Amino acid sequence: MSEKGAVVIDLKFEQREMHAALEGAFPGRTILHAADKAADLSQARYAVMWKPDVDLFQRAPNLDVLFSGGAGVDSILATPGLPDRPIVRFVDQSLTTRMSEWVVLQALSHLRQMPTYLAQQRRSEWRELAQPEAKDLTVGVMGLGKLGLDSVAKLKVMDFNVVGWSRSAKVIEGVETFDADGLNAFLGRTDILVGLLPLTPETRGLFDSSLFAKLRQGGALGKPVFINAGRGGSQVEADLVSALESGMLGGASLDVFEQEPLSKESPFWAMDNVIVTPHAASASDIRALFRNAEVQMQRFEAGEALQHVVDRTAGY
Amino acid sequence: MSEKGAVVIDLKFEQREMHAALEGAFPGRTILHAADKAADLSQARYAVMWKPDVDLFQRAPNLDVLFSGGAGVDSILATPGLPDRPIVRFVDQSLTTRMSEWVVLQALSHLRQMPTYLAQQRRSEWRELAQPEAKDLTVGVMGLGKLGLDSVAKLKVMDFNVVGWSRSAKVIEGVETFDADGLNAFLGRTDILVGLLPLTPETRGLFDSSLFAKLRQGGALGKPVFINAGRGGSQVEADLVSALESGMLGGASLDVFEQEPLSKESPFWAMDNVIVTPHAASASDIRALFRNAEVQMQRFEAGEALQHVVDRTAGY
Repeated sequence: MSEKGAVVIDLKFEQREMHAALEGAFPGRTILHAADKAADLSQARYAVMWKPDVDLFQRAPNLDVLFSGGAGVDSILATPGLPDRPIVRFVDQSLTTRMSEWVVLQALSHLRQMPTYLAQQRRSEWRELAQPEAKDLTVGVMGLGKLGLDSVAKLKVMDFNVVGWSRSAKVIEGVETFDADGLNAFLGRTDILVGLLPLTPETRGLFDSSLFAKLRQGGALGKPVFINAGRGGSQVEADLVSALESGMLGGASLDVFEQEPLSKESPFWAMDNVIVTPHAASASDIRALFRNAEVQMQRFEAGEALQHVVDRTAGY
Repeated sequence: MSEKGAVVIDLKFEQREMHAALEGAFPGRTILHAADKAADLSQARYAVMWKPDVDLFQRAPNLDVLFSGGAGVDSILATPGLPDRPIVRFVDQSLTTRMSEWVVLQALSHLRQMPTYLAQQRRSEWRELAQPEAKDLTVGVMGLGKLGLDSVAKLKVMDFNVVGWSRSAKVIEGVETFDADGLNAFLGRTDILVGLLPLTPETRGLFDSSLFAKLRQGGALGKPVFINAGRGGSQVEADLVSALESGMLGGASLDVFEQEPLSKESPFWAMDNVIVTPHAASASDIRALFRNAEVQMQRFEAGEALQHVVDRTAGY
């Protein structure tokens, strides 16, 4: 056994890209792969995982530290036999920047009526639509962690009015914020709702008909828009389909779903006013993930405190 | 004749929206409509126009000041019988903000590979693509007037590398800029080219095969992308189609065309990697246009200097 602890990898990412990123990563460490069902994982002291196998913790019973391959850790918390060891979240400027790219892109797409323009394009139709400006609309961002704060700042640069919501109150200069008690007031101000929430017992099924009904109707775009890049478990998809079909919602951008991959039978694929991306809003930069994990392993082995450790009670 | 000079309106905008905006505009002035072919326009001292009728200046021979309904004035300069009177350009924060919304939206759409994701969506296909970040790409903005500078600033906030080009050298803090002599160097650095140029003899047909061939190949997106929200007369569409079909260009976003409306027969409509909008990137806010024109009329009548007067030699 090497002096440096061995690492087991269990990442449900694109495999070729992952193997390329592994070249040169974790110098001096033994690297094991959970995908190799014959491998003996008992020596592994670290696991780097994303949607881990149900038997991972049974096969690797001697882990000291668990590393999440993304910002969310709900799939790890739900894995059987989860040991009582620290879980380190992946916090990286790359994750944040990519999420803001996606959020700003989707907010601008709905502001600038791209779903309608693209449908017109498919019909070779040249027709200019009445066009409100960003400042005529309010974007409400739910979730004011590192990702939410960066999105709020960039949406403001693009001239949107922005309001923010988090379970416990946060102060953001120049942005009106709401906490749990202010949810209805927050929704009543919101034309474009952006979900950046972790999946917890409180957020499961939060985005349902009763919530959509509280969003502002009759704003500059006519109908509210729902954008979700948090977790699919927070949205009730049957309610979302109804709200889009009835016109309670004017459109949606969805990167996350109750079941992923999204079923071929889902009505979202064919809806002109819905933009679907395959949980790609904030794809982890795998090299950055490995670099960050190596830094934390070295801290751990030097007896220093780990950073970005998940609070299991809060669920994030 | 009222003390305040009469105004003739010749705007090829959506007519209902324009008439709504006229309510309460130009208080105390007689308002005439070029669309009314029986109207006597000889008393008009001001014309507010966008793509004016060919006989406008013949019917309104006593104009003191001409107002353009948009940032570009090429259609006015090309109208027969153009009198030697000042032409005031429409400069407005609204025009600028909207243009930046559109430019940032299109740059992000190509960065985040929305044309491919939308094509996958139409096939109900869940497939994550390898995803570079904004900072892995360089956006080259051609045209560094008020619109260009605002787009540059907002593209930088979204983390793109940005370089700028203008005919005569400009200094922008934190942005490398190039002038006429540096065009090839500028193009060789550019992954996403953004055209925000006026139509002048120098820019007519500028975006052709030989220019596209000088853009950087093999950047983080593989192939360069062309975005044009300036004037359609600057692009050679036959060359653009060839470049897109041959793979010299990886995609395009086009708001302007050689002929507008774009012909139903144009191949652009059906290209998956091309986003078409109907000259809507920076739709004028008509109320703001009328407010700005009224301010200039009052300055003129008070003997003050007009603002935002077009330099006819430069063409903008």
